[in-house]
Amino acid sequence: MTLFVINPNSSEAVTAGIDAAVDPLRAFGTPIRCVTLAEGPPGIESQAQADGTIAPMLKLAERLEGEAQGFVIACFGDPGLHALRDRTTLAVVGIQEAAVMAAMQLGQRFGVISILPGSIPRHMRSFGAMGVLDRLAGDRALGLGVVQLADPGATEQAMVDTARALRDQDGADVLIMGCAGMARYRKTLQVATGLPVVEPCQVAAAQALGQIALNLSHWRDR
Amino acid sequence: MTLFVINPNSSEAVTAGIDAAVDPLRAFGTPIRCVTLAEGPPGIESQAQADGTIAPMLKLAERLEGEAQGFVIACFGDPGLHALRDRTTLAVVGIQEAAVMAAMQLGQRFGVISILPGSIPRHMRSFGAMGVLDRLAGDRALGLGVVQLADPGATEQAMVDTARALRDQDGADVLIMGCAGMARYRKTLQVATGLPVVEPCQVAAAQALGQIALNLSHWRDR
Amino acid sequence: MTLFVINPNSSEAVTAGIDAAVDPLRAFGTPIRCVTLAEGPPGIESQAQADGTIAPMLKLAERLEGEAQGFVIACFGDPGLHALRDRTTLAVVGIQEAAVMAAMQLGQRFGVISILPGSIPRHMRSFGAMGVLDRLAGDRALGLGVVQLADPGATEQAMVDTARALRDQDGADVLIMGCAGMARYRKTLQVATGLPVVEPCQVAAAQALGQIALNLSHWRDR
Amino acid sequence: MTLFVINPNSSEAVTAGIDAAVDPLRAFGTPIRCVTLAEGPPGIESQAQADGTIAPMLKLAERLEGEAQGFVIACFGDPGLHALRDRTTLAVVGIQEAAVMAAMQLGQRFGVISILPGSIPRHMRSFGAMGVLDRLAGDRALGLGVVQLADPGATEQAMVDTARALRDQDGADVLIMGCAGMARYRKTLQVATGLPVVEPCQVAAAQALGQIALNLSHWRDR
Amino acid sequence: MTLFVINPNSSEAVTAGIDAAVDPLRAFGTPIRCVTLAEGPPGIESQAQADGTIAPMLKLAERLEGEAQGFVIACFGDPGLHALRDRTTLAVVGIQEAAVMAAMQLGQRFGVISILPGSIPRHMRSFGAMGVLDRLAGDRALGLGVVQLADPGATEQAMVDTARALRDQDGADVLIMGCAGMARYRKTLQVATGLPVVEPCQVAAAQALGQIALNLSHWRDR
Amino acid sequence: MTLFVINPNSSEAVTAGIDAAVDPLRAFGTPIRCVTLAEGPPGIESQAQADGTIAPMLKLAERLEGEAQGFVIACFGDPGLHALRDRTTLAVVGIQEAAVMAAMQLGQRFGVISILPGSIPRHMRSFGAMGVLDRLAGDRALGLGVVQLADPGATEQAMVDTARALRDQDGADVLIMGCAGMARYRKTLQVATGLPVVEPCQVAAAQALGQIALNLSHWRDR
Repeated sequence: MTLFVINPNSSEAVTAGIDAAVDPLRAFGTPIRCVTLAEGPPGIESQAQADGTIAPMLKLAERLEGEAQGFVIACFGDPGLHALRDRTTLAVVGIQEAAVMAAMQLGQRFGVISILPGSIPRHMRSFGAMGVLDRLAGDRALGLGVVQLADPGATEQAMVDTARALRDQDGADVLIMGCAGMARYRKTLQVATGLPVVEPCQVAAAQALGQIALNLSHWRDR
Repeated sequence: MTLFVINPNSSEAVTAGIDAAVDPLRAFGTPIRCVTLAEGPPGIESQAQADGTIAPMLKLAERLEGEAQGFVIACFGDPGLHALRDRTTLAVVGIQEAAVMAAMQLGQRFGVISILPGSIPRHMRSFGAMGVLDRLAGDRALGLGVVQLADPGATEQAMVDTARALRDQDGADVLIMGCAGMARYRKTLQVATGLPVVEPCQVAAAQALGQIALNLSHWRDR
Repeated sequence: MTLFVINPNSSEAVTAGIDAAVDPLRAFGTPIRCVTLAEGPPGIESQAQADGTIAPMLKLAERLEGEAQGFVIACFGDPGLHALRDRTTLAVVGIQEAAVMAAMQLGQRFGVISILPGSIPRHMRSFGAMGVLDRLAGDRALGLGVVQLADPGATEQAMVDTARALRDQDGADVLIMGCAGMARYRKTLQVATGLPVVEPCQVAAAQALGQIALNLSHWRDR
Repeated sequence: MTLFVINPNSSEAVTAGIDAAVDPLRAFGTPIRCVTLAEGPPGIESQAQADGTIAPMLKLAERLEGEAQGFVIACFGDPGLHALRDRTTLAVVGIQEAAVMAAMQLGQRFGVISILPGSIPRHMRSFGAMGVLDRLAGDRALGLGVVQLADPGATEQAMVDTARALRDQDGADVLIMGCAGMARYRKTLQVATGLPVVEPCQVAAAQALGQIALNLSHWRDR
Repeated sequence: MTLFVINPNSSEAVTAGIDAAVDPLRAFGTPIRCVTLAEGPPGIESQAQADGTIAPMLKLAERLEGEAQGFVIACFGDPGLHALRDRTTLAVVGIQEAAVMAAMQLGQRFGVISILPGSIPRHMRSFGAMGVLDRLAGDRALGLGVVQLADPGATEQAMVDTARALRDQDGADVLIMGCAGMARYRKTLQVATGLPVVEPCQVAAAQALGQIALNLSHWRDR
Repeated sequence: MTLFVINPNSSEAVTAGIDAAVDPLRAFGTPIRCVTLAEGPPGIESQAQADGTIAPMLKLAERLEGEAQGFVIACFGDPGLHALRDRTTLAVVGIQEAAVMAAMQLGQRFGVISILPGSIPRHMRSFGAMGVLDRLAGDRALGLGVVQLADPGATEQAMVDTARALRDQDGADVLIMGCAGMARYRKTLQVATGLPVVEPCQVAAAQALGQIALNLSHWRDR
């Protein structure tokens, strides 16, 4: 029985990055498989794109359910999170929600590194729905799309500058990487800022494994 | 040029009820056409159903755009609201959002009459995303599905009892009907409670007509 | 039967500006008359001045009630809003409240352009009373009085600079003009910022016309 | 030099009750004089009545200013509080604001005993403007007008029942008397509920005396 | 290297209950040792008792640090949580904080089952400090002390009744057991309410193991 | 009978500064004695240090109780505030809580001058627990420890610069000195900023004297 981490964009490189990021959690004993949603766009940069992944993601989850102990939806925006929870009694974790809840245990005010300015209003709606806006220090955009993130030359300095602005100008004492495709920069950011940095796929997978081990996922049956 | 009110469920009876509800606004001069999303479910009662209407709704809106001045998405839950705003520069109004904003100008604490208990967590997420939870008096469910709402015998007394509980136990001084299929009961509720009652399709259409007249819809161009 | 827009300051030039701003809404069919409160100060810049307009405004509204379908109180600060609602069953809309509710349907975080720094604490109290502080991006003052606003040379650049600071430093994605005397600058600000700009008298009048058409104003009687 | 406590209603009996309530504070050394606003209504039960007291209250304060060290506005609703602060550099304290701030140092969630149901939306706006709604347990109305409060037979049991409902059903661990005319019942309520009970005129006068002693009132000059 | 779960009360029976509760997480591979703070009181029922455990707990943690990968502080109230975080770079998790963050991923509004009425103001302060009060459905006390909890006859029905009141009257869709000594009743409560029930020691230990595996604990060094 | 102001750090110089600060309140008639907690650290700069003062402070208060009418805990952070309230029926006031409540009656948004950056997350937790984050303009650190504060050369300009940044960049219209050792700079800050400045020991002592005079301290008995 497996924990499936579904990358709702169609980029295999992003899926590979997620797979590397969650690797330390394989020591917990449950197999973790990262899968790509073939029907997704190469990167999810708008609400319409995010919403468009829900129907195929639900179908994919349905196909996988026989082998599954739980699911992680690996897009910062958590598309389909509540829809999938309606459809299954297995553990369902969204990386945005999990990242915020983990960050709130590591610092008092979290800062978010987003890809594009257009992501920020979506994040504000999500943080409002979670009821955690009092804990938000700031949300700043890199101005880079999902695909550009794969190019370290273009990305690394922008991430460090954004992280430091969140710390120094907004008062963040913990940082959240606001996209599933940023995992490789976590250590760089920690060193550059001296702050804990939450990679959302990692903490979501850890959260899901905890729910599974404790039967919080399918509590209805047990 | 027309304001389109899209009912994302496939029930023509609900569309007809919406059409009657918005009729007083035709005096403003802009044609209003209420259309049914054929691909929708008979009633939208879960997050998965709501999310499933987004893709076909976006396609319908795209087909109608040539004749349109604006759109109202007529499901309490506003599925696809932000996705459609990403796609068009026309006015796009969601009935839930419009109902809350209208109610906040008619009373200090609004009460919501929902159909099923499962609707309430979804509403809480929406009200949190809107940042208006301090104005919520309460949200109470009838325990009736969308289809049952069409039967006045089963519905009227339940609505009155729920409305009075929101007023007397929760402190509501304005009420919101939490479903597009409740319009016919508005006057009954006002008489029974002595409170203003917001029918969400009505205020959403009025809001859209205002945005259109004031060029708030396609402000980018003008 | 008429919608009366009451300018509680005594400046006829401000009233003329409001009249021009609401003109597009005359197409809805209801006559709109903008009237000046002769007893008001030339400009309302303090809480004491705002409070001082309430008694004469209530008398003016009483005199007009026989010909009225509703009232808009056209001062950002909404002096006497709840007092007039206590006195009449007609529609009563405040431009500040209406502007905020309209803005919350056009963007996630609103920025406010105020006239003087002393206005800002008053606005904070109002936004707190409305329960919408989580949606506020920022409130910045031009440092210009109501009378100076009539001089475009002194005003236009200050408004553009303030609007851009709200967008770029505070994260606003929709702007509210925080005074009834700013209407003429709306288009300039939209072009300069690329953001929707809410002129409060316009959206208040639209809101009032909607309430009237839907009998939300005198719901007690119908 | 004197602290003036202005009762903005015209009832001398209420002023006498306030005078008795603040008497223990005369030991602090500053003379306290309670004065009645002759132009006020016999009791303030609506927003329009409250607003109507502001202009004559400002005039009264102006006349008294030469002998004054500070003012308390003794109506729960704080009419004219910010207007008077605009007009004078002396200490100006509102009894509602002072009561809330005192209660928040005596318990975690405060309950308010109001006179009429119509008071509650006004209170909610005030508590929202103060930013303290997270600390409110509940606000319950006696259903008695200001004049009826003077009749102990009609009032005492209603106050005890309301206080106990705030404690037992709403979770209040400190109570606020939501009207300047309730002072005589404070001890009864404390005995009946076992909770601390804040009489707003008392804590407002204490707060004003503190501001005066510490020069927080006219900090501009010193 | 071990995860230490410190029970700050001196009751070995409570420690044994915690040990049983976290047992499913031993499959993750890291040794988990539950230790009793000998200097603690038999049960922690007041703020003074909670604060009194901090100094000996810090000393115990210091002694254990050489063998430790992280610590869980197993008292609902999280005494010393931030003090211990100041002292060590290892993972430090509080069961109250962890329980709230886990519950917020399992439902929209959490209900808390407390032991005594006096616990509730402390919880309110904590939830306010966490910034999560918008997600709280209610907090209800059993009226039983820590020691009485060990007697199933006295406890089980009270817990079920309290849990159902949180669900039916307060709208909770997820429950938190508000004391480290309630673990044995989790399954009973799930069956009786049909809601997920969070046992705080379990989710805190899972959270700590995740932080350890992902180096979120001592991010400073790596 | 005496009001005791307990300085929980062991610096006699800080105690002397507090004694001078509260001196104007001796005119109220109640003796005020400022005492040093010998067991405290020279300055309290971390949560662990603050928590460590609670046990000896409770013992000191117990010894003093026979001569006491009330206690002020004179450390910004209010260590042991709720523990001491559990232990005595006398008035117990914390300087942080009192400062916030006083500031909220002097301006709409308060700014806090802290000593070290590490103080700020602690303050955020406290302001959240108080439910007043909507009133916070900002909290900025001097970057100076408690001991350095005693050196005016090093401190005065840093305080003025920080105060002006709170006013000009964060929008504060009232300032709070976020440490018991800053009292001597109050007048300088008022002149430099034109804003009211709250020295927390002063307002806490005033608040305690008011509670004592009004029997709000030991309401249980009277």
